[in-house]
Amino acid sequence: MTTIEVFPNPAPDRRYTITHINPEFTSVCPKTGLPDFGTITVKYIPGDTCIELKALKYYFLDFRNKGIFYEAITNKILDELVAACNPIEMEITSEWSTRGGIHSVIQATYSREESR
Amino acid sequence: MTTIEVFPNPAPDRRYTITHINPEFTSVCPKTGLPDFGTITVKYIPGDTCIELKALKYYFLDFRNKGIFYEAITNKILDELVAACNPIEMEITSEWSTRGGIHSVIQATYSREESR
Amino acid sequence: MTTIEVFPNPAPDRRYTITHINPEFTSVCPKTGLPDFGTITVKYIPGDTCIELKALKYYFLDFRNKGIFYEAITNKILDELVAACNPIEMEITSEWSTRGGIHSVIQATYSREESR
Amino acid sequence: MTTIEVFPNPAPDRRYTITHINPEFTSVCPKTGLPDFGTITVKYIPGDTCIELKALKYYFLDFRNKGIFYEAITNKILDELVAACNPIEMEITSEWSTRGGIHSVIQATYSREESR
Amino acid sequence: MTTIEVFPNPAPDRRYTITHINPEFTSVCPKTGLPDFGTITVKYIPGDTCIELKALKYYFLDFRNKGIFYEAITNKILDELVAACNPIEMEITSEWSTRGGIHSVIQATYSREESR
Amino acid sequence: MTTIEVFPNPAPDRRYTITHINPEFTSVCPKTGLPDFGTITVKYIPGDTCIELKALKYYFLDFRNKGIFYEAITNKILDELVAACNPIEMEITSEWSTRGGIHSVIQATYSREESR
Amino acid sequence: MTTIEVFPNPAPDRRYTITHINPEFTSVCPKTGLPDFGTITVKYIPGDTCIELKALKYYFLDFRNKGIFYEAITNKILDELVAACNPIEMEITSEWSTRGGIHSVIQATYSREESR
Amino acid sequence: MTTIEVFPNPAPDRRYTITHINPEFTSVCPKTGLPDFGTITVKYIPGDTCIELKALKYYFLDFRNKGIFYEAITNKILDELVAACNPIEMEITSEWSTRGGIHSVIQATYSREESR
Amino acid sequence: MTTIEVFPNPAPDRRYTITHINPEFTSVCPKTGLPDFGTITVKYIPGDTCIELKALKYYFLDFRNKGIFYEAITNKILDELVAACNPIEMEITSEWSTRGGIHSVIQATYSREESR
Amino acid sequence: MTTIEVFPNPAPDRRYTITHINPEFTSVCPKTGLPDFGTITVKYIPGDTCIELKALKYYFLDFRNKGIFYEAITNKILDELVAACNPIEMEITSEWSTRGGIHSVIQATYSREESR
Repeated sequence: MTTIEVFPNPAPDRRYTITHINPEFTSVCPKTGLPDFGTITVKYIPGDTCIELKALKYYFLDFRNKGIFYEAITNKILDELVAACNPIEMEITSEWSTRGGIHSVIQATYSREESR
Repeated sequence: MTTIEVFPNPAPDRRYTITHINPEFTSVCPKTGLPDFGTITVKYIPGDTCIELKALKYYFLDFRNKGIFYEAITNKILDELVAACNPIEMEITSEWSTRGGIHSVIQATYSREESR
Repeated sequence: MTTIEVFPNPAPDRRYTITHINPEFTSVCPKTGLPDFGTITVKYIPGDTCIELKALKYYFLDFRNKGIFYEAITNKILDELVAACNPIEMEITSEWSTRGGIHSVIQATYSREESR
Repeated sequence: MTTIEVFPNPAPDRRYTITHINPEFTSVCPKTGLPDFGTITVKYIPGDTCIELKALKYYFLDFRNKGIFYEAITNKILDELVAACNPIEMEITSEWSTRGGIHSVIQATYSREESR
Repeated sequence: MTTIEVFPNPAPDRRYTITHINPEFTSVCPKTGLPDFGTITVKYIPGDTCIELKALKYYFLDFRNKGIFYEAITNKILDELVAACNPIEMEITSEWSTRGGIHSVIQATYSREESR
Repeated sequence: MTTIEVFPNPAPDRRYTITHINPEFTSVCPKTGLPDFGTITVKYIPGDTCIELKALKYYFLDFRNKGIFYEAITNKILDELVAACNPIEMEITSEWSTRGGIHSVIQATYSREESR
Repeated sequence: MTTIEVFPNPAPDRRYTITHINPEFTSVCPKTGLPDFGTITVKYIPGDTCIELKALKYYFLDFRNKGIFYEAITNKILDELVAACNPIEMEITSEWSTRGGIHSVIQATYSREESR
Repeated sequence: MTTIEVFPNPAPDRRYTITHINPEFTSVCPKTGLPDFGTITVKYIPGDTCIELKALKYYFLDFRNKGIFYEAITNKILDELVAACNPIEMEITSEWSTRGGIHSVIQATYSREESR
Repeated sequence: MTTIEVFPNPAPDRRYTITHINPEFTSVCPKTGLPDFGTITVKYIPGDTCIELKALKYYFLDFRNKGIFYEAITNKILDELVAACNPIEMEITSEWSTRGGIHSVIQATYSREESR
Repeated sequence: MTTIEVFPNPAPDRRYTITHINPEFTSVCPKTGLPDFGTITVKYIPGDTCIELKALKYYFLDFRNKGIFYEAITNKILDELVAACNPIEMEITSEWSTRGGIHSVIQATYSREESR
């Protein structure tokens, strides 16, 4: 499994937001075996560390041939990125292309304060 | 009638939102017998269960030849989906294509707390 | 004058919003005698009754050859639709096409609570 | 079956084009039984007669619960409208919403001259 | 009836095109008595005279309460504007807002050469 | 200098908003002597009077050959329009086309309450 | 390898065009091993047979983990689809998402006549 | 009057096109004294010289307070720019913002060959 | 290094916002040596001074050949502009073009009150 | 100077087009020393060789700090890419962001046949 590398936050005393948008996410539907296509947005307020961009790209590539549902992916990415960089807040949004005429969006949020 | 299947919420301890958008909804105007076309958006915070996507598609198909007004459809879908998955919150939005030069949007919301 | 017909609200116990958008509104400028063109949006939380869509269309047609200013039309429509259906809240927005290089928007709101 | 009514061309000595666009076409996939949604565009140079708009609307409604493939619908509409109004030229374009991640467009043309 | 005023072409020896677009055209459907809304585009290569813009505006206003079909309006405007300014070429396009779910476009062309 | 004419508010007992958008504003940069182009938006809750639209147009024309900076124009328009119509609230937004690769927006607000 | 199924052309005597657009194509860059994402458009005039839509979808899926360059894919798809359905004309367009700040489009065409 | 400076064409042996688009053109209507706003597009195939960009900007500024009609401006700019740089071909397009609900476009073309 | 010139705020007693958007920012990635391209938005409530626009342009140009990461640039610009003009509030947003299929946005905020 | 690497055309017997679009081109204005920003589009029908994408990227980077005019860049890129890959046809389009309120596009074309 890809390790999500981090680097020291250059402004650790300021609350500010970092957003990374990946419109080229793909995984596999565990029911039909057919590929799913989506856009994953990672938005967070960093704590002591920031997520390294290239490592994030490789982390997303690991899902390419994995069978997993929309709701599960979104929560799994949130859990793993929170574990990797210990942010003050983080929000993961996944938007999926149309399947059977329906198009879906999942959004999950983590807050260091609430999770204490 | 189609049963709205549900599956266990993969992250029951986190409040997060799921949105399903169906731009291919059609029903029949009870007054004129002519078809209506709309987009139905289901946005909810799941409780213990999530709505199964394929079942949702078949549930929407059941309206294809049913005669029913905009306001009634929107409230009926909210009632039936709330009954099926017992969400923490749910919002149904229906947007309708132009009839007689007028275009309509109906939005109804359910909150578990308020309805106690 | 057209009567604005109403029908019983199918979900009188739930606060929800209904929006009707008419992009084909036209009236006459009382100063120049030239036609004005606009979009009228009616957004409301129904009380015991909802506005019948066809009657609304004919109500708007009555303005076609009437001389009346933007600010007056917007407030008049709000007053008359509130009188017709006694809503919990209502908002009328009128957006007007360019006259003399300037384009205007008027928005007026009614709330049952505030008007008590 | 709906008869496609026509009316006399008001300018029979001039070659000019008439285009009718129906973004609310729906039929049924004969393989899956699931509905298809599309936009049908009829563009023609009238001969002695023009297609009556309301009759065209009812003609399209007849496909609502019919099982028929994209390629067949497009050619069938072309054949039937040509038979109804005997145009100088006619072009039918059908654009279909996404199925299985693929979105399709079919375009067929008739020319009185070529078909002699 | 409004006279369509013209003024001398400032560059009579050059073939060039003038286009006037009126997105605020309205007339009345002779069948239903309901208003139609459209955009009229006049594109022409002037001969010795150009159409005066203010007169064109008043000419279009004359249709406001007239009952006339799409195909007839388009050909009538072409005939009357050709008669008024004797252009080298002229093309009238009328695009109409949705009626019964169908939206229409009519385009008619005049060429001085062809009409000799 | 143009006087900004006003007329009596037709609904003085209701708080509602009026917005006038002028995308054809131009003035002159006092530094370079070159013209600036912008869109001025006036949004206000009227008190006893409303701004007359034609007078507003002429008021804006007065800036055409005046040398004045973005920040100063925006505050000057706010001061002068507040003085003219004594609104409950007013907001002026000026958006400027690109100069030296940078594009600017200034927004200033007046509130009768706060200014007491 | 997936066989590209075909079915009999329902209108073999008419030249008409069929377009299938797949915005969810993905393959692998043979140099970097990283995924490429693109939209493949197949536009053709059918001969005796048409391409079956579901088979086309599976044919495209076969490229998911294949290492192949943009220019080669486009020509390979053209060759294989021409071989499968023997069309009168066919055009393949592949549009690729940005790599290294550059975004590419390849378009190749086959014509039965020219290839004789 | 501003002189339109030119510089030697860096590729005099190749036919290629240069397009300059000025969305900030303004002049004055000779009838009403009110400003007109437009976009002027200059597209040409250079002969031995190209138009200097800064000089072109100052040339356009000269129209700011000049009273002149749409048709006359367009032809005057074409005449003066052709005289200044002796191009192989040149096309001037002027697009004007809405006046009295009508929006206009004028396009005039020069070709060295045709004008011999 | 470029000094960021300021000028006296023309309305020092009013809280209002000034926004400058630079869509032509470029710097260099310290890891790869390749250029990065972005849009920098500076939004602030001025104190006693405003940032001079031309000086801001030259300040941004200084980054053209500097190697610096997204997160560091954003915080550095915020620190330096706050130091230069001592605003009441300031927000810097940097939006970056796609690298490795991922596109990033960083947003940092300063408030005079919070920083006391 | 960067060498523009090429690779063998995988379909040398077919005329087809390859388009590479670089929206991140930047060079320097030789007059002012200020940077210019543009989009360069390379469209060609390959002969025996195709342009290698990574080499093309580095070729464009060489212009970053070079002082050169729009017309000269466009013709220089055409000359150098034609020399590098000997195409059947090639077209270079450069579109430049606004300078002094004017935005420019240059397009130059090479054809092997015409240049014989």
